Amino acid sequence: MNLDTTLPYPSDGRLSVVALEGIPEVHPGDDLAALLVAALRTTPDLLPLTEADVLVVTQKIVSKAEGAVVDLTSVEPRPEAVAFAERWDRDARQLEVVLREARRVVRMSNGVLITETPHGFICANGGVDASNVGPDSGSVVTLLPADSDASADMIRAAVRDALGVDVAVLISDSFGRPWRWGITDVAIGVSGMMPLDDLRGTPDADGRIMRSTVRATADEIATAAELALGKSTRRPAAVVRGAHPTRGEGRIADVLMPRDFDLFK
Amino acid sequence: MNLDTTLPYPSDGRLSVVALEGIPEVHPGDDLAALLVAALRTTPDLLPLTEADVLVVTQKIVSKAEGAVVDLTSVEPRPEAVAFAERWDRDARQLEVVLREARRVVRMSNGVLITETPHGFICANGGVDASNVGPDSGSVVTLLPADSDASADMIRAAVRDALGVDVAVLISDSFGRPWRWGITDVAIGVSGMMPLDDLRGTPDADGRIMRSTVRATADEIATAAELALGKSTRRPAAVVRGAHPTRGEGRIADVLMPRDFDLFK
Repeated sequence: MNLDTTLPYPSDGRLSVVALEGIPEVHPGDDLAALLVAALRTTPDLLPLTEADVLVVTQKIVSKAEGAVVDLTSVEPRPEAVAFAERWDRDARQLEVVLREARRVVRMSNGVLITETPHGFICANGGVDASNVGPDSGSVVTLLPADSDASADMIRAAVRDALGVDVAVLISDSFGRPWRWGITDVAIGVSGMMPLDDLRGTPDADGRIMRSTVRATADEIATAAELALGKSTRRPAAVVRGAHPTRGEGRIADVLMPRDFDLFK
Repeated sequence: MNLDTTLPYPSDGRLSVVALEGIPEVHPGDDLAALLVAALRTTPDLLPLTEADVLVVTQKIVSKAEGAVVDLTSVEPRPEAVAFAERWDRDARQLEVVLREARRVVRMSNGVLITETPHGFICANGGVDASNVGPDSGSVVTLLPADSDASADMIRAAVRDALGVDVAVLISDSFGRPWRWGITDVAIGVSGMMPLDDLRGTPDADGRIMRSTVRATADEIATAAELALGKSTRRPAAVVRGAHPTRGEGRIADVLMPRDFDLFK
C-alpha cells in the first residue's frame, strides 16, 4: 500500500473526500469558478489534482452565483398556495415560486409539495430552498440552476485553464426518496464523466455476466461528498478522489428515467 | 491540517473509505465476524479504529455466511414465473424464489419484478441476487439476511470483543430508485448508530432553523463505501472514517416510510 502523506491518492479500494476550505459567502454575479480555483489551490493536501478526481459543487452556491434566487417579498402567491400554506404552516410565497417553476405537480398534500422541474427532476419543493442562502436573507430562496450541466462545464473549463488538469465536475443537491425517510445528495449536473456506469455484460468477480447492474456513479459521488460537507456548515464544495469515474461527455439527462420506463412509480 | 501518514483520521470536512483486504470466499457456516476482524487487523492504515468509524459489510457475504442461499436446481417455478421468464429471458426459478420471499408484489412487468420484502424493503427481485455468489455456484442465489440489524449486532459485538472498540456496523445492498436510472448502495441493517440524522429545528450556517432536513446518514455511508468497493471485485467490506454518525441503538426500520406517508409514491 503506497500512501504518501501530502498527496494521499487512494489506491484501488480507497476513497477520500476533501472539503474545499476558504470559500467565502457567494453573491449573485460572483465568479464562482475563480473562487473554487482559489480554494483548490489553498486547501491542504489537494494539489496536484488528477483526471481521476471529481470536483463536487453544491447547488446552493451555483444558484447564488448565477443569480437563480428570488426575493419572496416580491412574490404574490396564488390562492391555492395561500390555502396550502395556512393549513400546513408554510410560506405561501415560497410555494408560489415552486408552482411557477414546476413542469408538473406530482403531489401537493400533507404539507409536502413535490414537483417535476423543467429539467426533469422530481423533488420536494422543486429544488426551491430557503436554508443556507446567507445572513440577512430571510426572504430569499434559491432556484435550481437553469442548466447545471452548463454550470459544471464552465467550472471544469476554468479549473482546466487555471490548474492544467481536466477534472470531472458535478453539481449536487439533496433529494428525498420514496419509501425511505431522509435525504441524500444526488447529481443534478455533470461535466467530464458519465453519470452511469453500465456494467451489464461485463463479468463479475466469478466470471458471471452481470445482467442488470447499472451503477449511478455520479449520484454516489455526490452522496460521498455530502458526508464530508455536512448540511449546516460553510463547506460548499469537495474533491472526491478514488472513485475513478468513466470519463466522457455525459449529461445529467442520461440519469433521468422516462416515465413509461419507471416500474417503481 | 494534521494528517498522520499511517493513521489518516480525517478532520472535519474529510472522509476516507478503506476497503478491507484479504477476506476470502465466504461459505455457509463461516464465522464472518472472525473473517472481518482478521481483515481489520491486517488491512494497512486502519488500526486503531475509533468509535467514529463505521464498518460497512455488503449483503452478499452476510447472506452467504448465514446460509441465506437457495440452490435453484431444487426450485420448482410456478406457471406465472415460467411465463414471465420465457417472455423476458429470465430464470423462472429465480423469479419463483423472489415471489416466495415477497410480502407484496409491487410490479411485475417489462421483465422487471419489484417486490416488498418481509423486512419492508421495496426493491428489484426482492434482493435475491445471482451475481458474485462464488465460483461453481451457477445455480445458487442469495436471499437477504433474515434480520440484517441482528447480523450487524453480531459483527459489532465481535469487533468490540476482539479489538476493544465499539464501531458502528452497517449491512449494505444495491437498490434501484424511481425516476433515476442506476443503482446506489443503501443500508439494510444497522448497529450502533442512528440511520437518520434529524436536523429539523437545528440552525443552519446562517442561524436559520432548518425545517425539513433529515439526513439519511446510514444510506449515505453505505453509498460512500460502495464507491471504494466497486461491484466486480472481491472487496466485500470497508471502513468509512470521518462521517461521524450519531451513535445510538438505531434500527433499519427507522428508515422505512409507512405507505400512508409516502407522498412520492
